[in-house]
Amino acid sequence: MQLKRYKNELSYSYALGMAPVVELIDRCPGLVLAIYAHPDYRAESGASIFDICEERGLKCETNQKIFNIAANKENIYVLGVFKKAGGSLSPVRPHAVFVNPADAGNLGANLRTCLGFDIRDVAVIRPGADVYSPKTVRASMGAIFHINTAVYQSYYEYAEAFPGHEKYFFMLNGETEIGGIAGVRDGKFALVFGNEATGLPDEYKSYGRSIRIAHGGEIDSLNLTVAVGVAAHAFYKLRR
Amino acid sequence: MQLKRYKNELSYSYALGMAPVVELIDRCPGLVLAIYAHPDYRAESGASIFDICEERGLKCETNQKIFNIAANKENIYVLGVFKKAGGSLSPVRPHAVFVNPADAGNLGANLRTCLGFDIRDVAVIRPGADVYSPKTVRASMGAIFHINTAVYQSYYEYAEAFPGHEKYFFMLNGETEIGGIAGVRDGKFALVFGNEATGLPDEYKSYGRSIRIAHGGEIDSLNLTVAVGVAAHAFYKLRR
Repeated sequence: MQLKRYKNELSYSYALGMAPVVELIDRCPGLVLAIYAHPDYRAESGASIFDICEERGLKCETNQKIFNIAANKENIYVLGVFKKAGGSLSPVRPHAVFVNPADAGNLGANLRTCLGFDIRDVAVIRPGADVYSPKTVRASMGAIFHINTAVYQSYYEYAEAFPGHEKYFFMLNGETEIGGIAGVRDGKFALVFGNEATGLPDEYKSYGRSIRIAHGGEIDSLNLTVAVGVAAHAFYKLRR
Repeated sequence: MQLKRYKNELSYSYALGMAPVVELIDRCPGLVLAIYAHPDYRAESGASIFDICEERGLKCETNQKIFNIAANKENIYVLGVFKKAGGSLSPVRPHAVFVNPADAGNLGANLRTCLGFDIRDVAVIRPGADVYSPKTVRASMGAIFHINTAVYQSYYEYAEAFPGHEKYFFMLNGETEIGGIAGVRDGKFALVFGNEATGLPDEYKSYGRSIRIAHGGEIDSLNLTVAVGVAAHAFYKLRR
């Protein structure tokens, strides 16, 4: 298999670094295509990648060239190649929906936050950052391997697929303050977030409940990653 | 004045980009040393930097060289040079304390979150990211110009200066879940956060109230910026 520099069109992607590779191996062994160690790899604390692979019947090959291709100039010593799985979301669990996210690093961080607050089904609405890009995978610190992700061509396509999920749209001028949500349907709800710079267009207000996170007037808006954290935490607590 | 590439030792720093420069001019006019526009600068929406400066009796000089020195290879067209003000924190307002923060971008984002949730006094404990570095300033999107910052050589130095502030230490194994905090002293409290990778050392548990943000077991910890968001939001609501 001739591995290439990552592009959206490839049917596989890369997990870069020990933590995401271990999550890949543990959570999605069926997706693993190959595991590589850099010639300069030295096991730090914990088990060596060679031991971890051997335990699971996987081969770990030492190879320098693949790191030049896949890891740019980053200091990466362990790398996993994995098959992109066409995901589908659970019809009975909560969703997070990211509409046109711009930045793969933010998307990855948000996946990790979602997992932390028990949202394991994430929709990404195109156009937007590539949920499988090595940058997303890395920023998620492997959380992506715990999460079902699915990509939709439009918000409407997503909404048609899950009409029974109650939608909460996070908007600067949302009608309900997040503290004003008294209860939540068990499982069947979706937290919907817009693009980092522009948020959700005003028309979303007519699609469901629009929610705001109150903050002081000296900033225009919260960072998206902070808004996702506050929102996911609030719903995590509502469900407990 | 012969301006240099930014280093921690300089008595001045740079605000890079239109938004932080406008915050600098608006909030801290006394700290402005110079404002520059790149020869390729074109006013987008809103007022031109030349008009903004003229209105306030400031000079805005067109200069290419300073952008090569201060802005690396980023696409920056407006730049402010400002004097570092030795800050001191308010004795009667809430504080955020960042102990050994590693990353200037995270520190800047956290400053913005603090401002959004009405914490305008921030201590940084050394060693740690430089609160004045252009990267911090930029990531704060100018929030730093609304905030008093002060740098301490140790946490003890900070704590001695503000013994009357009730300290809340955010730790993975904190004793009180954040939702269990029923009330808060008006103003005189401090939210204390550790380093991105290591958090606060265990010994902090004996210094005051240790707080945890409950999350699921599939992630080790929340991102620091998310933890700061959830914590600052919770205290913002406790005070209203």
